Amino acid sequence: MTTVSTRGTNLPRMGGFNQAALLEAIRLGAGTCTRADLARKTGLSAQTVTNAVRRLLEAGLVTEEDVKRQPGAGRPGTTLDIVPDSRFAVGVHLDPAAVVVVLLDLAGQVVATRTAPTPESEEPGAALEVVVREIDAVLDGAAVERDRVLGVGLATPGPIDRARGLVLDPPHLTTWHDVPLRDEVARRTGLPTLLDKDVLAVAAAILWFPASGRPTDAAVVYAGTGVAIGIVSGGDIVRGVSGNAGEAGHVSVGRAFGRCACGREGCLGGVLSANAILANAVERGIDLGAGATDAGASETVRADRAVDGLRALAEAGDPAVAPFLHETGAALGSALTTVCELLDLDTVVPSGPVWDRLGPWLEPGLRSVLDAYPMPGHHPLRVLGTAGDGPVAAVGAACLMLDDALTPRPTGLLLRV
Amino acid sequence: MTTVSTRGTNLPRMGGFNQAALLEAIRLGAGTCTRADLARKTGLSAQTVTNAVRRLLEAGLVTEEDVKRQPGAGRPGTTLDIVPDSRFAVGVHLDPAAVVVVLLDLAGQVVATRTAPTPESEEPGAALEVVVREIDAVLDGAAVERDRVLGVGLATPGPIDRARGLVLDPPHLTTWHDVPLRDEVARRTGLPTLLDKDVLAVAAAILWFPASGRPTDAAVVYAGTGVAIGIVSGGDIVRGVSGNAGEAGHVSVGRAFGRCACGREGCLGGVLSANAILANAVERGIDLGAGATDAGASETVRADRAVDGLRALAEAGDPAVAPFLHETGAALGSALTTVCELLDLDTVVPSGPVWDRLGPWLEPGLRSVLDAYPMPGHHPLRVLGTAGDGPVAAVGAACLMLDDALTPRPTGLLLRV
Ligand SMILES: [Zn+2]
Ligand SMILES: [Zn+2]
Repeated sequence: MTTVSTRGTNLPRMGGFNQAALLEAIRLGAGTCTRADLARKTGLSAQTVTNAVRRLLEAGLVTEEDVKRQPGAGRPGTTLDIVPDSRFAVGVHLDPAAVVVVLLDLAGQVVATRTAPTPESEEPGAALEVVVREIDAVLDGAAVERDRVLGVGLATPGPIDRARGLVLDPPHLTTWHDVPLRDEVARRTGLPTLLDKDVLAVAAAILWFPASGRPTDAAVVYAGTGVAIGIVSGGDIVRGVSGNAGEAGHVSVGRAFGRCACGREGCLGGVLSANAILANAVERGIDLGAGATDAGASETVRADRAVDGLRALAEAGDPAVAPFLHETGAALGSALTTVCELLDLDTVVPSGPVWDRLGPWLEPGLRSVLDAYPMPGHHPLRVLGTAGDGPVAAVGAACLMLDDALTPRPTGLLLRV
Repeated sequence: MTTVSTRGTNLPRMGGFNQAALLEAIRLGAGTCTRADLARKTGLSAQTVTNAVRRLLEAGLVTEEDVKRQPGAGRPGTTLDIVPDSRFAVGVHLDPAAVVVVLLDLAGQVVATRTAPTPESEEPGAALEVVVREIDAVLDGAAVERDRVLGVGLATPGPIDRARGLVLDPPHLTTWHDVPLRDEVARRTGLPTLLDKDVLAVAAAILWFPASGRPTDAAVVYAGTGVAIGIVSGGDIVRGVSGNAGEAGHVSVGRAFGRCACGREGCLGGVLSANAILANAVERGIDLGAGATDAGASETVRADRAVDGLRALAEAGDPAVAPFLHETGAALGSALTTVCELLDLDTVVPSGPVWDRLGPWLEPGLRSVLDAYPMPGHHPLRVLGTAGDGPVAAVGAACLMLDDALTPRPTGLLLRV
């Protein structure tokens, strides 16, 4: 299919890339853009802008307002703005620990959020039930009619088969094999659905929100049950041949530090994942409490409790924890310098549940390594926080859905229902 | 400037990206494309194709031929082809060992090649003299008028400042600091000139020649005085924020193997560069002959002789050399699996003077690692040779010049003289 399904959402069919570029410029202009500004920003002709804006106005996606002349503000004009509640997208982040569902409006604001634990059984069908139930609950709770919902973006751990919408065999979801998650969610919700890797959804969120400074060349770290590094290069997300870019578990931290499942010491996956942090802390004799070693809990739950335990110890000023986390942050920095050098990146964006809780103690070590590294192009390496409100992977999944729905492509990866 | 300088070369000024896309489709069609084929391949309207082709015909860049109906070959039409000698580009590869200059025609064929040793003094001015002299010699020898030469593409070791055309401070050209090579070559040849990193020029050559299979997601290895890995992602060369992508000296090979200048064991730069191969071979007691250890020769010359010596020993069946090179190839493979996994690449293209001579003995080790590696997307990792005739970095530099001249961009990096 070459056009996006309109499914009663009355999206203008014409325009394609132009329409998406215009909507983005209007969104980022935050109510200040005139048609002339849009022509200048997008490089489109005045006539093309006028025609496309007319279609967007008719479809109710944008609104216009006459602006009076302000002293010194140039000539008056009619400015355009997004109508936030004209369209919505659902974003779902499924990982071994939790299912997070958000509802995003056309302006990228989080309208509703729900979180549920991922079923302990790890059986794909049980997780699917939770995903569908939470999507329904979010839409019902926000009282948004389905015909204003563009679709569902799903973010899961890799590897995936993006073209076919399958979750292949994630290392921390051991009973999952070639699960047709995208098509099942689409069938049961009746909404267009796409599937992408969690770390690439995080990258999408960072590119979507202007507050992030919209880096063009960045390494987006996601530290959770596993570790991934999504790459933004030249302003675009690097996806790779099969949509599985971002696997960073075996990027070296440059010295022995924790043991990786591959048998080597010094793999990033043996340093920064929740499991690795638990193992390395225990090896250093740090007492994380009974919860982290509870044999009755799953490995995922224990690792998650270990991160909580470390945070509590760090907050309490435990003398062993601060150096351990400084060293862990420095090891991440070492892995990132190799990646930044190879791809000539200038920005690092750490994220994910491990970073969200331990970031304040990891960041000094990370920065110390990045600040000292002589990049070939002689530019500094900056550390950005993730922008936008809400859980970033779920928000990013919704951003991917917005992008996809608003940008018709010759070979869409969206299941049209 | 938003349009390419025409400098008497009578390039059609209109068309921009359309014109470049059409020329590429005509070139790859190798004389079989009709206007209808072009419209289908490029997605442009029939009217746009007709207008753009008329301009290309008027400028003499393409020619047309009436084709008779062949049995079963559909309806007859007029096919288009490139006029190879209508325009040319010069490509220069400057490295610590040699200056290589090629002349490429519009079809991408190498019309002339010259090679000279890089002056031992390493003083930038001396190398500049050689570059300018060899460019003049190539153009004079081929009897090509300057008004048919689109310009000069320069490929040098990094780091560079691409925007300003400077060679910054390459590790193996120790007296070079912020050398304005691009502008000096432009001034002295009177030709438009651009500067890019050597490994990115190699990547450009691989994308230019259809015989390479035109990978969309590839790691292009250049093993010479140093080691670099240029990345092709989604069909485009990854350049990074400052044009310095490709620095791979500190990518880990996953285990101790040779010492790197950074102090770590197991950096790719301590394994695959000519200097590293010399050091590692000596450490294993392999006798590379007097030339490789001649204290009167420069480090670059000794390393180059060492590679020749290793090749001679390998050809003679020396029992220590084959395992050493197998292990070196396997170490390269290990570094590449990390890179391919991070960026979800499916293709590896080794090149450069070290690979050109030792490839037959390095490749089995490389392949053994790549073949055994479980890529997340479950796709194989293939090894491609570089395609096109002639020295690949110099040819690629000329391809970059052709690309630049035929694709006007809003922010050209070409010095217009
Ligand atoms: Zn590992
Ligand atoms: Zn190193």
